[in-house]
Amino acid sequence: MTNTQVTLFQIDNYGPWTVTPEPRREADLQTLQSRLFADISQYVGARDGYVFFTRFDNMIAVTNGLDVTDHELLQESISNRYPVTVSIGVATGRTPIQALSDATTLVQDAGSAQDDGRREILDGRIVDDEFRAPDDVQIAHFDVVDATGEYTDELNAFDSFIEIEQGYAALMRYMRRAHDSLSFFVGGDNVIAVCPDLDRTAYEDAVDHVESAVEVELRVGVGRGETAHEAGMSAKHELEHCRADGRRLSLGWE
Amino acid sequence: MTNTQVTLFQIDNYGPWTVTPEPRREADLQTLQSRLFADISQYVGARDGYVFFTRFDNMIAVTNGLDVTDHELLQESISNRYPVTVSIGVATGRTPIQALSDATTLVQDAGSAQDDGRREILDGRIVDDEFRAPDDVQIAHFDVVDATGEYTDELNAFDSFIEIEQGYAALMRYMRRAHDSLSFFVGGDNVIAVCPDLDRTAYEDAVDHVESAVEVELRVGVGRGETAHEAGMSAKHELEHCRADGRRLSLGWE
Amino acid sequence: MTNTQVTLFQIDNYGPWTVTPEPRREADLQTLQSRLFADISQYVGARDGYVFFTRFDNMIAVTNGLDVTDHELLQESISNRYPVTVSIGVATGRTPIQALSDATTLVQDAGSAQDDGRREILDGRIVDDEFRAPDDVQIAHFDVVDATGEYTDELNAFDSFIEIEQGYAALMRYMRRAHDSLSFFVGGDNVIAVCPDLDRTAYEDAVDHVESAVEVELRVGVGRGETAHEAGMSAKHELEHCRADGRRLSLGWE
Amino acid sequence: MTNTQVTLFQIDNYGPWTVTPEPRREADLQTLQSRLFADISQYVGARDGYVFFTRFDNMIAVTNGLDVTDHELLQESISNRYPVTVSIGVATGRTPIQALSDATTLVQDAGSAQDDGRREILDGRIVDDEFRAPDDVQIAHFDVVDATGEYTDELNAFDSFIEIEQGYAALMRYMRRAHDSLSFFVGGDNVIAVCPDLDRTAYEDAVDHVESAVEVELRVGVGRGETAHEAGMSAKHELEHCRADGRRLSLGWE
Ligand SMILES: Nc1nc2c(ncn2[C@@H]2O[C@H](COP(=O)(O)OP(=O)(O)OP(=O)(O)O)[C@@H](O)[C@H]2O)c(=O)[nH]1
Ligand SMILES: Nc1nc2c(ncn2[C@@H]2O[C@H](COP(=O)(O)OP(=O)(O)OP(=O)(O)O)[C@@H](O)[C@H]2O)c(=O)[nH]1
Ligand SMILES: Nc1nc2c(ncn2[C@@H]2O[C@H](COP(=O)(O)OP(=O)(O)OP(=O)(O)O)[C@@H](O)[C@H]2O)c(=O)[nH]1
Ligand SMILES: Nc1nc2c(ncn2[C@@H]2O[C@H](COP(=O)(O)OP(=O)(O)OP(=O)(O)O)[C@@H](O)[C@H]2O)c(=O)[nH]1
Ligand SMILES: [Ca+2]
Ligand SMILES: [Ca+2]
Ligand SMILES: [Ca+2]
Ligand SMILES: [Ca+2]
Repeated sequence: MTNTQVTLFQIDNYGPWTVTPEPRREADLQTLQSRLFADISQYVGARDGYVFFTRFDNMIAVTNGLDVTDHELLQESISNRYPVTVSIGVATGRTPIQALSDATTLVQDAGSAQDDGRREILDGRIVDDEFRAPDDVQIAHFDVVDATGEYTDELNAFDSFIEIEQGYAALMRYMRRAHDSLSFFVGGDNVIAVCPDLDRTAYEDAVDHVESAVEVELRVGVGRGETAHEAGMSAKHELEHCRADGRRLSLGWE
Repeated sequence: MTNTQVTLFQIDNYGPWTVTPEPRREADLQTLQSRLFADISQYVGARDGYVFFTRFDNMIAVTNGLDVTDHELLQESISNRYPVTVSIGVATGRTPIQALSDATTLVQDAGSAQDDGRREILDGRIVDDEFRAPDDVQIAHFDVVDATGEYTDELNAFDSFIEIEQGYAALMRYMRRAHDSLSFFVGGDNVIAVCPDLDRTAYEDAVDHVESAVEVELRVGVGRGETAHEAGMSAKHELEHCRADGRRLSLGWE
Repeated sequence: MTNTQVTLFQIDNYGPWTVTPEPRREADLQTLQSRLFADISQYVGARDGYVFFTRFDNMIAVTNGLDVTDHELLQESISNRYPVTVSIGVATGRTPIQALSDATTLVQDAGSAQDDGRREILDGRIVDDEFRAPDDVQIAHFDVVDATGEYTDELNAFDSFIEIEQGYAALMRYMRRAHDSLSFFVGGDNVIAVCPDLDRTAYEDAVDHVESAVEVELRVGVGRGETAHEAGMSAKHELEHCRADGRRLSLGWE
Repeated sequence: MTNTQVTLFQIDNYGPWTVTPEPRREADLQTLQSRLFADISQYVGARDGYVFFTRFDNMIAVTNGLDVTDHELLQESISNRYPVTVSIGVATGRTPIQALSDATTLVQDAGSAQDDGRREILDGRIVDDEFRAPDDVQIAHFDVVDATGEYTDELNAFDSFIEIEQGYAALMRYMRRAHDSLSFFVGGDNVIAVCPDLDRTAYEDAVDHVESAVEVELRVGVGRGETAHEAGMSAKHELEHCRADGRRLSLGWE
């Protein structure tokens, strides 16, 4: 049984800030957002979590292994170095979507994302050390088969991107609806899904679904671990096994 | 008539690098990619261009105002500070998609994205100063109406994201197919489209299409300029006018 | 009795790299060095350590609380994101200089800083958890009295800097020679010294020495802690007490 | 005759900010300062200027080739992405120290560095394009002979640093007093001096002075150019000539 700890990072009152007193230069916003994400990724990643840029103003992370103090310190460091602050909700659950729903509610209950009185909320609970288990996190790393030969070297860079994006859009919705999973595009042709305890059939169905819906061929490696990094690294190794022998699916525990 | 200068940045042989000798930690890849994008955004943005993260391994930019030397210097600076290098194609065209196709071809003709003998290609042509005009670039800045009230404060953060993502997916495909435009998600609930010389009807259709296809309500500000920044800043001001008076569309030149 | 854990970070074979195949642009080197330092500072700082830029190619850190795995992960993350790698030595000692000497020897014994066969050394030992104590680290935070009124607002920016620099040079040598301490300029008019178990007289002498040698007036707050951050934060609070009541010296434990 | 354009960047009201409402974590300040410097270096460097970290709260740059708009854009980008703002003074002069004095005065006249009503000053004048000349900037790049063999591989890392620092301290004061030059430590064993039109004897004297005063052996390459980058790159090449044939001094124009 998975027990995923999910954190929501939400920039406080960001929409109004971007246009006050005048709309800010888009390049500065892009630079700010991607640097902020990079910092959070470096911090969370060094503690074996995964963070996904998602909307940039709302970032979703798998944080098994980080305690409340770890979150506090990151929140303080951001406010010390950026012109914006973030609110944070953390929750745990049997499914990632359940955990995320609870984490989101904690932030929402404290006020609107655009309530300028709501700043630096930090609320939630973590998986206590004594309850942590080696299969708390299940990660599936999806990858497009021969994206370079099929798209990157053949189509213009936007049409390649449309193909990848369609694959992602089909996959993320299927995994959400059918399997309570959270899937994130992580660049290139890669999608990482944070899953509950799914079996072989679930992943086969997902790969089939994407192929029949949008004709994008995927392969997927799946791993389990005490943390996102452990599960994700196992998934990456499984993906290499797929690459080596042509399989479409490989599970780290089989 | 627009005359868009488009640049493709492609990380050289990046796929193999990410798994050699072993798969690299995902958090490091995320940090690397977003810092690289931030640096390019800062550089291009300071010269009044726009760059979009796209797939992160392939980034697309509007670079009217940057000459070949500007591109060279950026390429050199990246190779001096990162463990990877980038190849660059630049082209101009009456439509953004035409320019991008040409830019992509320049890079593809020099070798595969995963050819390890191809490194730091820089090829292409720019809009010469004497031919630059105040309406070379047309930018549409799309925004979801009341995303905070409809989604962010109401749904869990992933379901909010699905809504935004669906709006983006529908819009990007429509704008590509119907209008030879390149549309990019830029975070939050915002999409920026780089367009040829489109009129009011085209944007109305796009907004209608997204609403009827996926029930996401958009508004859009459109601007023209000699550079992406000028056009984009005008688009942002138009968007503020929409916000102020409830219109769904506002054009900078009307 | 202090028990300082000191880490030396040395960029591998950096001198030759800066000029191969041609001298690299100085601005890129400056950007690279300061970003690398910032990343290390963020990482070490989040684990309650302090790192000082020192020479940038050799950085010195107080790392009580970081274990060998923490160092490994940082080393790996650097090699995943930078064009250079770092070697690391860690040691502990009753005085900071003793710890640093041992840490340096570990790196030196593995090969020259410009031996291109020596890469990513990681060697040393840490203070085991069971031996950690609340006064392992002693930090003195020195600050120039009214630097703004005396220098910044009065002299040109270089002559101000000369004054500060002279104060620093006198202080660092005195503290090294008389008290086995490591003193680092940390920007502005601030110097942080990592000290063994010194008493009130030692600091009074240091302040007097600098005043009589180069006529720079200092005040100093001193703190103790299990980590650099704890000791350093206590020192900062003592400094605020000095600012409030005009004292030149304040010790956190008196 | 040189005609150096010098810019002073001063963080507004930074001292009070670092301790309000409480002293901020030192690691966050270090990260903030070095990232800010890196960003300015990247920006100024891409326009062929040089910027030196100096005190971090006051940074000095050689900016021939940057106009007032370039400075404005950088100032805006900083305020869009950092929790602090910067004031900027720019001036030109026959000697670097004269230019810097004027640049400093412009900032000082607008208010104290710790006046919280003074924010984002931008004042000054640049070398107009028509008056720019290929010998406007003269840069000397000093380097310690065999620092690796003499210090880095032999002494502990702090004692190595003391030697380098002493060399720097002696050199910076000599060059300031005797030759109206601004010398900056740039990491490793390197010092870059921004000079007026000095001849061979001046540099020989400087090298001799440092050797007799503190027994640190230097070599120096000197270059001229329209910009800091051109002059500095020439100086770097001259330094390579010194390395190749054992000379202590090499001038780019001889
Ligand atoms: N985030 C992330 N992206 C990756 C990873 N591995 C590859 N990528 C991205 O995926 C892109 C395509 O690389 P590959 O998947 O190796 O290439 P391919 O042509 O699809 O070849 P095969 O997958 O081997 O069939 C790269 O440019 C990267 O952007 C990874 O571990 N993490
Ligand atoms: N890239 C980018 N993102 C923006 C910009 N303005 C707003 N955003 C993003 O959009 C999100 C939502 O903000 P708004 O669009 O102001 O909020 P809203 O609730 O939709 O309200 P209205 O748009 O006023 O109806 C913010 O959190 C930002 O992430 C912008 O100029 N550029
Ligand atoms: N690294 C670091 N630098 C600091 C800190 N506090 C202040 N500074 C720096 O010191 C500079 C001078 O600030 P202050 O020391 O507050 O100013 P002052 O004019 O000397 O006034 P007093 O110290 O109150 O007499 C600032 O611009 C900062 O660069 C700190 O905690 N850490
Ligand atoms: N900022 C900067 N630092 C440099 C440059 N070249 C070298 N360094 C620094 O100087 C340090 C020592 O390198 P070298 O000067 O090559 O080594 P050395 O042992 O003194 O050998 P020689 O100078 O050849 O006698 C390096 O670790 C770098 O930190 C440069 O161009 N710019
Ligand atoms: Ca693939
Ligand atoms: Ca909106
Ligand atoms: Ca002070
Ligand atoms: Ca040297």
